[in-house]
Amino acid sequence: MAVISLLSDFGQLYPAQMKAVILCINPSTVLVDISHQIPAQDIKAGAFALMVSVPYFPEGAVHLAVVDPGVGTSRRPIVVESGAHLFVGPDNGLLIPAARRLSQDFKVREITNPDLLLTSSSTFHGRDIFAPTAARLSLGMTAAEVGAEIVDFVELDFGTPQVIDGKVQGQVVYVDSFGNLVTNISSEVILNFFKCGDVLHICGTSMPLVDTYASVEKGAPLAVVGSHGYLEISVNSGSAARLLRLESGDGIEIGGR
Amino acid sequence: MAVISLLSDFGQLYPAQMKAVILCINPSTVLVDISHQIPAQDIKAGAFALMVSVPYFPEGAVHLAVVDPGVGTSRRPIVVESGAHLFVGPDNGLLIPAARRLSQDFKVREITNPDLLLTSSSTFHGRDIFAPTAARLSLGMTAAEVGAEIVDFVELDFGTPQVIDGKVQGQVVYVDSFGNLVTNISSEVILNFFKCGDVLHICGTSMPLVDTYASVEKGAPLAVVGSHGYLEISVNSGSAARLLRLESGDGIEIGGR
Amino acid sequence: MAVISLLSDFGQLYPAQMKAVILCINPSTVLVDISHQIPAQDIKAGAFALMVSVPYFPEGAVHLAVVDPGVGTSRRPIVVESGAHLFVGPDNGLLIPAARRLSQDFKVREITNPDLLLTSSSTFHGRDIFAPTAARLSLGMTAAEVGAEIVDFVELDFGTPQVIDGKVQGQVVYVDSFGNLVTNISSEVILNFFKCGDVLHICGTSMPLVDTYASVEKGAPLAVVGSHGYLEISVNSGSAARLLRLESGDGIEIGGR
Repeated sequence: MAVISLLSDFGQLYPAQMKAVILCINPSTVLVDISHQIPAQDIKAGAFALMVSVPYFPEGAVHLAVVDPGVGTSRRPIVVESGAHLFVGPDNGLLIPAARRLSQDFKVREITNPDLLLTSSSTFHGRDIFAPTAARLSLGMTAAEVGAEIVDFVELDFGTPQVIDGKVQGQVVYVDSFGNLVTNISSEVILNFFKCGDVLHICGTSMPLVDTYASVEKGAPLAVVGSHGYLEISVNSGSAARLLRLESGDGIEIGGR
Repeated sequence: MAVISLLSDFGQLYPAQMKAVILCINPSTVLVDISHQIPAQDIKAGAFALMVSVPYFPEGAVHLAVVDPGVGTSRRPIVVESGAHLFVGPDNGLLIPAARRLSQDFKVREITNPDLLLTSSSTFHGRDIFAPTAARLSLGMTAAEVGAEIVDFVELDFGTPQVIDGKVQGQVVYVDSFGNLVTNISSEVILNFFKCGDVLHICGTSMPLVDTYASVEKGAPLAVVGSHGYLEISVNSGSAARLLRLESGDGIEIGGR
Repeated sequence: MAVISLLSDFGQLYPAQMKAVILCINPSTVLVDISHQIPAQDIKAGAFALMVSVPYFPEGAVHLAVVDPGVGTSRRPIVVESGAHLFVGPDNGLLIPAARRLSQDFKVREITNPDLLLTSSSTFHGRDIFAPTAARLSLGMTAAEVGAEIVDFVELDFGTPQVIDGKVQGQVVYVDSFGNLVTNISSEVILNFFKCGDVLHICGTSMPLVDTYASVEKGAPLAVVGSHGYLEISVNSGSAARLLRLESGDGIEIGGR
């Protein structure tokens, strides 16, 4: 059975149309929602959510991701092959960090096969182009059949943390539903400067670098390497986004004692 | 494998009870959520969401829809046959626009088969009557087995847009999670009066009729025939519901230059 | 096909990682979300949601539930066997009311099998311990293989309603997405004192005990034995949580004429 994951900023209703289209083509697909609550048009948040999720999917999975403010423009539809996974979505950077996470050696193709572009609205390529393409890939259509390789695809990364005067500078790339602030600072970077138990000064607030949320009192802030491998600023049984008044895209600076 | 779609205003928790009941009866059902976030008791919004979704489902699909403020009253439980699809839910109009979209020649039956009415709470027919009925239909029970045809079912439509003094008058029938205002004005009606590129005056705001959301600057309003075939008022990368302060049920008037 | 239900306070994103891990181990699992919107760290609300849902699932179902503020601490991971169902999650009381609902004769085991504890973050046991355990149980691993029985597991109940001076005292244990206030007062308790049609005085508001939400006018409050078997305070087409300004955990007192 083929697994197709779905990620979008669609909220309700539109994801079901994509799923229905997929099931018409491949009735035995297993459909797994990653999220349809990506903040509207926030390509970066979508790319991060996709990147931290795909490594857990089985080989052969097809990932259909649509955060697509440029739908209907000259923005190209693409398929990306990486490791044993396939990605389908818009050429706006959304798919690239996830593909790169699976393998540095990924390949991007523009969807030009006219069979895949037959019937399309100008406002919902998720349903009209990406879903049928994903379904046919799940049935064994090869990536080469969708179109030729392109090398000028749109790149996206989450920035490289800087170290200036012994302070680590990064940014918030994702706020989860607990209000945890997930940063672009990987465990390698942070553990190069600080160790578990150190007190960090982040945006005017002091907090320990710990292993678990429950290492501090309820309501107290903490820093932790999250399950995704990135530094996360949290509040035990609370919301760091609310306490620190930070959101996705905000810069943060981390100093030690 | 049989597909059963689910739509409700239940939010969390109660949909899982319906799915569990279905899987007890037909373990190989493929369950697809259309939405469980229909505004509470908003039969019209639910009917619209169902209508625009069902055409994408495979033949043989069973659609279980429950927005049911009259549960436990004399409101009848019904099954509707239309095209190769079946619908199960309350007789309050919820199912009718979707059934009519698939075929003008649809048939409504009251669920009177005592086997389907055996064990029921008075507050959750979704779980106790509609889910088992949907599951048994997905296993091959015929619509005729649920009960006799009725012709006095509750109707529901979204109103007919009027044209007065060259202005098109309609209403908002659905607000999606982007804040797009979906109207009851079909592409046929609007394209009879206006063409792509025209500037429309809608509720005190001027906006172009365009093909894609990205045809205007970020934050600017636009009118577009949405992927569902109805005129939609949107804001590129923003919320038209917030900008125009309109919600489901509000009337709108559209004038040209 | 094995059914695995999932319940958590994770919101978006993290549930997909658990599902992906499960599908890597058992690709033919049928996954059913009970809710991922349990209020953050609210073990009691999660326990109630699980308890009222599991009786509808087919025999052999595995229930994976994670509301886990103590993740990464000495809090034990457990598996519970009850009736023909299995539960996987943290030893913090979350699983106990559901297990007890299925059978008084349930058995709790600590997960100590080193194969199940191999690779774990300290912040996401849902993905790293509980999901693989649930998947392997769904493939036929016996509960005995996960570890030895324990008897000092963490208990949780919803309190016992008291009757003082002819008034029933209980508490709100769950607020659903309609704003219905679900209490810990079972139908047996309430129907011992009151009958359908009686007027109840609850927290300064009078309302009838009725059978259906539509028994009162729109906007009016009512008391009803909900589909879960507990007294529920509701407003027809409105929100009792808003009208009575009550939330989960609040005490309520019910008097008669």
